Amino acid sequence: MDRSFDSIILNSLAEDAPGGDMTTLCTVSESAAAHGYFIAKEAGIIAGTDIAKRVFDLVGDGVETVFFVKEGDKAEKGQRIGEISGPARTVLTGERTALNLMQRASGIATATAEAVGRVSGTNAKICDTRKTMPGLRALDKYAVRIGGGTNHRFNLSDGILIKDNHIAAAGGITAAVSAARARAPHTLKIEVEVETFDQLREALDAKADIIMLDNMSVEDMRTAVGITAGRALLEASGNMGERDLRAVAETGVDLISVGALTHSVKALDISLKFTLS
Amino acid sequence: MDRSFDSIILNSLAEDAPGGDMTTLCTVSESAAAHGYFIAKEAGIIAGTDIAKRVFDLVGDGVETVFFVKEGDKAEKGQRIGEISGPARTVLTGERTALNLMQRASGIATATAEAVGRVSGTNAKICDTRKTMPGLRALDKYAVRIGGGTNHRFNLSDGILIKDNHIAAAGGITAAVSAARARAPHTLKIEVEVETFDQLREALDAKADIIMLDNMSVEDMRTAVGITAGRALLEASGNMGERDLRAVAETGVDLISVGALTHSVKALDISLKFTLS
Amino acid sequence: MDRSFDSIILNSLAEDAPGGDMTTLCTVSESAAAHGYFIAKEAGIIAGTDIAKRVFDLVGDGVETVFFVKEGDKAEKGQRIGEISGPARTVLTGERTALNLMQRASGIATATAEAVGRVSGTNAKICDTRKTMPGLRALDKYAVRIGGGTNHRFNLSDGILIKDNHIAAAGGITAAVSAARARAPHTLKIEVEVETFDQLREALDAKADIIMLDNMSVEDMRTAVGITAGRALLEASGNMGERDLRAVAETGVDLISVGALTHSVKALDISLKFTLS
Amino acid sequence: MDRSFDSIILNSLAEDAPGGDMTTLCTVSESAAAHGYFIAKEAGIIAGTDIAKRVFDLVGDGVETVFFVKEGDKAEKGQRIGEISGPARTVLTGERTALNLMQRASGIATATAEAVGRVSGTNAKICDTRKTMPGLRALDKYAVRIGGGTNHRFNLSDGILIKDNHIAAAGGITAAVSAARARAPHTLKIEVEVETFDQLREALDAKADIIMLDNMSVEDMRTAVGITAGRALLEASGNMGERDLRAVAETGVDLISVGALTHSVKALDISLKFTLS
Amino acid sequence: MDRSFDSIILNSLAEDAPGGDMTTLCTVSESAAAHGYFIAKEAGIIAGTDIAKRVFDLVGDGVETVFFVKEGDKAEKGQRIGEISGPARTVLTGERTALNLMQRASGIATATAEAVGRVSGTNAKICDTRKTMPGLRALDKYAVRIGGGTNHRFNLSDGILIKDNHIAAAGGITAAVSAARARAPHTLKIEVEVETFDQLREALDAKADIIMLDNMSVEDMRTAVGITAGRALLEASGNMGERDLRAVAETGVDLISVGALTHSVKALDISLKFTLS
Amino acid sequence: MDRSFDSIILNSLAEDAPGGDMTTLCTVSESAAAHGYFIAKEAGIIAGTDIAKRVFDLVGDGVETVFFVKEGDKAEKGQRIGEISGPARTVLTGERTALNLMQRASGIATATAEAVGRVSGTNAKICDTRKTMPGLRALDKYAVRIGGGTNHRFNLSDGILIKDNHIAAAGGITAAVSAARARAPHTLKIEVEVETFDQLREALDAKADIIMLDNMSVEDMRTAVGITAGRALLEASGNMGERDLRAVAETGVDLISVGALTHSVKALDISLKFTLS
Repeated sequence: MDRSFDSIILNSLAEDAPGGDMTTLCTVSESAAAHGYFIAKEAGIIAGTDIAKRVFDLVGDGVETVFFVKEGDKAEKGQRIGEISGPARTVLTGERTALNLMQRASGIATATAEAVGRVSGTNAKICDTRKTMPGLRALDKYAVRIGGGTNHRFNLSDGILIKDNHIAAAGGITAAVSAARARAPHTLKIEVEVETFDQLREALDAKADIIMLDNMSVEDMRTAVGITAGRALLEASGNMGERDLRAVAETGVDLISVGALTHSVKALDISLKFTLS
Repeated sequence: MDRSFDSIILNSLAEDAPGGDMTTLCTVSESAAAHGYFIAKEAGIIAGTDIAKRVFDLVGDGVETVFFVKEGDKAEKGQRIGEISGPARTVLTGERTALNLMQRASGIATATAEAVGRVSGTNAKICDTRKTMPGLRALDKYAVRIGGGTNHRFNLSDGILIKDNHIAAAGGITAAVSAARARAPHTLKIEVEVETFDQLREALDAKADIIMLDNMSVEDMRTAVGITAGRALLEASGNMGERDLRAVAETGVDLISVGALTHSVKALDISLKFTLS
Repeated sequence: MDRSFDSIILNSLAEDAPGGDMTTLCTVSESAAAHGYFIAKEAGIIAGTDIAKRVFDLVGDGVETVFFVKEGDKAEKGQRIGEISGPARTVLTGERTALNLMQRASGIATATAEAVGRVSGTNAKICDTRKTMPGLRALDKYAVRIGGGTNHRFNLSDGILIKDNHIAAAGGITAAVSAARARAPHTLKIEVEVETFDQLREALDAKADIIMLDNMSVEDMRTAVGITAGRALLEASGNMGERDLRAVAETGVDLISVGALTHSVKALDISLKFTLS
Repeated sequence: MDRSFDSIILNSLAEDAPGGDMTTLCTVSESAAAHGYFIAKEAGIIAGTDIAKRVFDLVGDGVETVFFVKEGDKAEKGQRIGEISGPARTVLTGERTALNLMQRASGIATATAEAVGRVSGTNAKICDTRKTMPGLRALDKYAVRIGGGTNHRFNLSDGILIKDNHIAAAGGITAAVSAARARAPHTLKIEVEVETFDQLREALDAKADIIMLDNMSVEDMRTAVGITAGRALLEASGNMGERDLRAVAETGVDLISVGALTHSVKALDISLKFTLS
Repeated sequence: MDRSFDSIILNSLAEDAPGGDMTTLCTVSESAAAHGYFIAKEAGIIAGTDIAKRVFDLVGDGVETVFFVKEGDKAEKGQRIGEISGPARTVLTGERTALNLMQRASGIATATAEAVGRVSGTNAKICDTRKTMPGLRALDKYAVRIGGGTNHRFNLSDGILIKDNHIAAAGGITAAVSAARARAPHTLKIEVEVETFDQLREALDAKADIIMLDNMSVEDMRTAVGITAGRALLEASGNMGERDLRAVAETGVDLISVGALTHSVKALDISLKFTLS
Repeated sequence: MDRSFDSIILNSLAEDAPGGDMTTLCTVSESAAAHGYFIAKEAGIIAGTDIAKRVFDLVGDGVETVFFVKEGDKAEKGQRIGEISGPARTVLTGERTALNLMQRASGIATATAEAVGRVSGTNAKICDTRKTMPGLRALDKYAVRIGGGTNHRFNLSDGILIKDNHIAAAGGITAAVSAARARAPHTLKIEVEVETFDQLREALDAKADIIMLDNMSVEDMRTAVGITAGRALLEASGNMGERDLRAVAETGVDLISVGALTHSVKALDISLKFTLS
């Protein structure tokens, strides 16, 4: 069992029950047992099953959680995706945290899979951005991968993305790329954001590894792909959540980064139905 | 300046720049200054301006952030809502965290305000649920208030909500309410979730303070309002994000709890445009 | 085993042995075993047995802790209340933390039970306040419940208690109650602190759910009960640790909140006597 | 301003207002100002004034807190000991945390000063133990110093106290002292707990630096002082909170360690009375 | 003032004075002032001056720290590199933490600068590894940059380094590179560790971006440079702390990664000499 | 298994893989198993084997780690010191953290053992200082003990070391010692740093328990030993990492404190070689 989300889970449990689960303490005896199922209330890609299991492990001993689906499997509406049994108080106390995390992860995975589906057959990959929720970046980016997408840089320390302000500060694209090449970790590709073909050409001449086409029309992207001719990876960016991803992908860009995957998540509706005994 | 979101902000900054902002360190000199504006890229209710200010305070000294709108004001598309000036490196390093937080808060406030608008003139209040993102509950619930909604219980420790499993465990609604009344903090109202009119009547007889009507049709809600006759607050619940809120409100229920306000947030598009000197 | 006190326990262990237990490391071999008993050195209500067990689990593997009493049982002076066996170093390192926590919890439970006993047969419940020790509120309030008391609000976020300053700021009791009803979570009852009968009547007219009678004489409380006539819960408050609780309870108030239960705790004397082999 | 209690304070504020101060947010406007006084409701030694000031600094900007007494001063019943002015919301939100900490610190300081007073004129010092509340040891021990007492070891890592189990494990007092002298930090004195005069003599022969007389009668202590003849410090221990401290001190022991100073604290009653404008 | 090392500093201060600075509290009055200088006791590159300043800011108010050297400047033996004045207690309490951090940072910077100097005039850059001390990676890597080196990947999440085990698991270099290219963030270059020329050729054919030559002789490195012919960056690795860096650099490799820069740090001797008044 | 280093380990793992181990996730299947050995690449004293085991326990379930050496054993160059088997992903993810910690601990233990060896047969003990790395003090001081050294004070709160500034502030050695004796915990010895024989004599007259001879020549130390004549412990200090320890020890001092043991650690080269299946 992966433990890398433990701090998120513990943080969430502490937030949700700082003084215990009052209703449950009042109405459910310590010896009561629960048994039930996780149910997908709508169709979607399931992500976060291990996290849900781990939630109950961290609430208390004795809960058995088994999922019938693997990470990234598609569940149909109404499908039983997992089974749970154990002490009723533990199940009730962990329920909301487990669902909140799994619903978010599955929502992101579902949206990602849908975007990936739209560009299938093209060369383009769907990737995420840093527009994630504070404290949840590892979870959000994990869910994007489960949905079939890839990750953009994790944070400001592990990716070079030269934007307009950096260009201005450095005195032009060439100078900025050159400064980054001299000083940044050699393990990182250098990405430059461009808005015009002139900028694109300058970035290519500076041997940028990746070029972000910011808010370009489909036609302009196609022209950019032609100009680039394979000399750099091209990433389409800018409100991609509201664009025609297929059309963008068919221009020949290598990557489409979609902030909406993580900044505007629609949770997948999953519920936990159980009975006590 | 309120500091209650400091731990969220510091957590976010540490996540976003564990080893510094590499691009900025490579390309922007320590003495460069930035000046620019926060711009609403779409119309919506603004929330989180104080949080955004605090982000830059926590990144470093010397940034001045002034907002032209107050919390809860509506911004038009394209409107300049704030101004920023200060050391360029500090502004660049804090930008994403400030925007991520403000965009989420504004997105929640906007969705809440829209829901509130739909029920205006009725007796019903719009409220939230515990379907918030781990670690961000205080932020999410704050944003709901800014949008004109009210908060449901903050966590399991500070509200009594007796659901089907609790009822089964306690041996019926009457027994469950009685157990809660005897043992829970007297400061908390007792809420019972019901699915049938019989349950409703039993809950009323048990003198529940609030009754949650779970997934009822509009007609059934109207009947429930009649049966209740003011003896308890009635809360409509269950996928309210996809229901006709006006119709629900017009049944006469007192509250409508909408999980989607926080579990499926559409970030409000806000950007920070600045130039360096 | 409940884990909700883990952070308190880990915090305490780190505080008590940042560089290991020097005496034990110098004098006790790694293979030494300990066996012994928890003994109540004075009569009282036992609380915190699960917490004590958890302390040793968090220090290291291999300690067996069994308690012969349940939470809330009364122990006589000299009674063996539990048994422990395991690696001597682990037992010695965890001893003080386990005892400190159990002694405080049992001290609170004992004082609460005594207060509850004094009002037995009346309608009044004994409850706590927010006068708890920083970082230990969940423990303190848990112990009050074990002692037979109930909890007042957990914190400022989950209870509405309108005091003199709030009344002044809002422009009167009526305005304050009305503001709280409009904006606070509907799950919270609204409590108003009053010092005079006029204030009491205004609070009742404003339909406050709970009214705190602040520092009233027994006679005045009795009058207040008559005026209220069941329209609100009445909570007696103000130095109740030094008042005649029976007399207060017999006025007919519903609750008596006693800050001394947690702000002035007399630890119950419990020791751990064991031998090594 | 000392910042060493910041983590205790921040922890406490987070515990007391995870979602804001609801009553205050509902009833007090952001622009309201507060002005008032800290008042000692009973006579006692004041400790924690700097901590109280720091609480308000950490809640928000703009609060001025001035104390008219110094740490360790005695306040009379009813005495105004400090003055506060600033934003009403900030004052209201920090009030309970500030008072809880100052009341505990002052309660400890008062009890310590009383114990110190009882032994005045003798050679004996009053000191504390490790029976402090988890997370609050630094505060508790600070308060003991303010009350005129001295501190025993801070934790298991920074003091050598050889008890019965250590003696048994090491094979006798001589062996235990010898092991500690060989392996423990040379900066720490070696203390041995004894129950008989034979043990005392063995400990003296082993050149223990301090000898703890565990639960001895006053007569036996006097005999022990004679036997010791200045060759080691003698510390009287064991339920000293309920013993006649003067009689103990007059036996000639050097130290009297009193667990009750911190494990059974009676908070000093201090209130904050203010008005809003 | 950069705050990105605040958590390291606060952690260190808590570790170094959990119960206050006893010696100072006993012997130095609250009103005493200190004035003095930071002195380089040996020649070296200075790093961490801002961190040292920040340490005193975080201990308490009122300390002025001014450095006469900039980050990365070389100090001569005996040179005064900075001046400090402020409350004596604050200076004494922060002294060790400030020096520990600055001495480590300066030691790393000095060793890095020495390595950089040895390869000056060649094409090779000196870089670090993940062999840093737990919790101090950001500091260690910062110091390497100040010394003129560059950083390798920050952690396992932000760099792709395919080693022998990964190759075996994936079924060969080609398969491993292909898997990484398909699934890893496109912003990261793909690095492969090779031990033979055959592996090198396979990695080049697979279009690895960087190739780590593991423990190769200088001659073999030269051959590798010839084979590679600019198609990838070449990084020399393996006990480079004990190799002839000049000879390695002259083979034409692009990078030399030196674990010893951070895993075997010789602190630069810096002291703080001050007088009190 | 000791858990006292858990927070260091968890901190390190979070630092090293905030978003997972990308290379491993891309190239190694979840079902792959690893088996291999820890190998000492150079001769030295091994420390940290339990810590290494605990690292893998904290990464995930299923890893078996067995060491063939005990803490403090000497390993020869090339010796297999331990064996590991378990899920390949878990082993790969924990590898660097386990090695970083064990290499540092073993490096410190090795240097300590070497210093201890140099003074063997004399009366002098080798001890450490507070010149440890932030957050790692418990680890560093543990390793010194494993290497056969002893610990100086752990922090500012648990040792009294009166230096020049304290002497100046208190008005002389006699006054400083007297102030410390009156106010510091009686469990702590009082140490005074002296530079001259006059100071030494004054410290002896003041009955200091330990006297630190700061930067004295071997001859002066010998004179100091004669003057002291057993009335206090003598600790030689000041750049001892570069002094002739044997000569120092033969002067008759009791302790030699060596900052270099922890401020300038040379990691012991230990590797983990394993194969996957």
